[in-house]
Amino acid sequence: MGIPFEQIKIGDNASLSKTMSETDVYLYVGITGDFNPVHINKEAAAGSIFKERITHGMLTAGLISAVIGCKLPGEGTIYLGQNLKFTAPVRIGDTVTAIVEVIGRKEDKRRLTLKTTCFNQLGEIVIEGEALVKCG
Amino acid sequence: MGIPFEQIKIGDNASLSKTMSETDVYLYVGITGDFNPVHINKEAAAGSIFKERITHGMLTAGLISAVIGCKLPGEGTIYLGQNLKFTAPVRIGDTVTAIVEVIGRKEDKRRLTLKTTCFNQLGEIVIEGEALVKCG
Amino acid sequence: MGIPFEQIKIGDNASLSKTMSETDVYLYVGITGDFNPVHINKEAAAGSIFKERITHGMLTAGLISAVIGCKLPGEGTIYLGQNLKFTAPVRIGDTVTAIVEVIGRKEDKRRLTLKTTCFNQLGEIVIEGEALVKCG
Amino acid sequence: MGIPFEQIKIGDNASLSKTMSETDVYLYVGITGDFNPVHINKEAAAGSIFKERITHGMLTAGLISAVIGCKLPGEGTIYLGQNLKFTAPVRIGDTVTAIVEVIGRKEDKRRLTLKTTCFNQLGEIVIEGEALVKCG
Repeated sequence: MGIPFEQIKIGDNASLSKTMSETDVYLYVGITGDFNPVHINKEAAAGSIFKERITHGMLTAGLISAVIGCKLPGEGTIYLGQNLKFTAPVRIGDTVTAIVEVIGRKEDKRRLTLKTTCFNQLGEIVIEGEALVKCG
Repeated sequence: MGIPFEQIKIGDNASLSKTMSETDVYLYVGITGDFNPVHINKEAAAGSIFKERITHGMLTAGLISAVIGCKLPGEGTIYLGQNLKFTAPVRIGDTVTAIVEVIGRKEDKRRLTLKTTCFNQLGEIVIEGEALVKCG
Repeated sequence: MGIPFEQIKIGDNASLSKTMSETDVYLYVGITGDFNPVHINKEAAAGSIFKERITHGMLTAGLISAVIGCKLPGEGTIYLGQNLKFTAPVRIGDTVTAIVEVIGRKEDKRRLTLKTTCFNQLGEIVIEGEALVKCG
Repeated sequence: MGIPFEQIKIGDNASLSKTMSETDVYLYVGITGDFNPVHINKEAAAGSIFKERITHGMLTAGLISAVIGCKLPGEGTIYLGQNLKFTAPVRIGDTVTAIVEVIGRKEDKRRLTLKTTCFNQLGEIVIEGEALVKCG
């Protein structure tokens, strides 16, 4: 099981980093059906405001889910909600770090509020938001 | 390109349905690194409150992103934010419909607020929330 | 980084469990080129001594590598060698646990010998062997 | 079926070559759960002793399994064991050849000992070891 609710304090944090590959994007397209050209059409993406193919915001957000499900609090956690602001595009080949930090704790319901942030290799924030989870 | 902002009215909607497969879940695990046993360990999942392996909430949420990126408003849309409440688990083999409905419209910024809902084959809501997008 | 060599003692162990899916087998076939019918041909496999499709021994052995690379000793580890005995077949749908235990420690070279065992949901050993690693 | 035991002689050999792609590595991570940064994080790998992302040793070893399962002896073979020494890293984009050569033959048990070697496009040995198999 993951980290017990009793041991989790405000300020605790955990993270995970990954270089987002073309493979990730192409598989994600197949899983979700999001065939938007900006993700899978190099020619069309070159003419977009992004100038090249970008990953799906929701794909990058999956790294947040991974930190929550595997590290903090980890196994047994129930994911109740997530707010996301997509603040900058993630290009294929960018390395994203998702970091999760405990900012709230509700004793009676065993719930945590987590600040969830993703940034790229240049330190630019690409996603910000909050998650609400219940410890197992 | 997608549907022009000028033609989009409050109440417009679009949807997409998919049976969530074991393959979807296993590939998503690889993409995100979320190796939580409840998704990939049949034995451990049987002992969890879900009784069997479930999909990742954020994976199912990807269907919302697909409707927005491909149908309403479609190509050229900029995804600014998404709020998600995970209200019920999605089991492997469940068929999920993601539906997106226009509930707000900001003329000057060409922005739309969308009600985003996912439900399963029994009509149970599994995700609810709102998205904020800017038309291309 | 992973667990520092100095903190690792004889008897320390770590494990990881996964239900082996048809998807895993099919992707592995594509990665390695091992198109042996016993893995991907249901009809041919039914006529083999295994009676049904089985996973590749070397695919299951990958779980050992994952425990070593991610948990014990984890990041920074250099994998020097691995001996494997494939003692029983793993069928599609079996849940495999890979467990790694420290059985030797070479101070000067920062090397560890690990007993590496995989067993299925019935407790039957499917792979046994030893690994040699150098701590980062 | 594969090559009959009776026709196999000491010195017989077979091989298979493949350029190891980023896709191979990323899919293998999903199959095994080995999210070690040296495989999937370009930035972290640049700071490692390898200077860039490398493939998993056990992934490359899968090519040996493919030669045994598909070519020598091929279909019907039972893979009993494998010893591996990982002698050099394989980088993404390297082309690996796995070669298998018969070095032992046990008439009564229909068993073969195989020398198993993998080398890269520069001729550097990346894996060496031996396999033990039983002919079908």
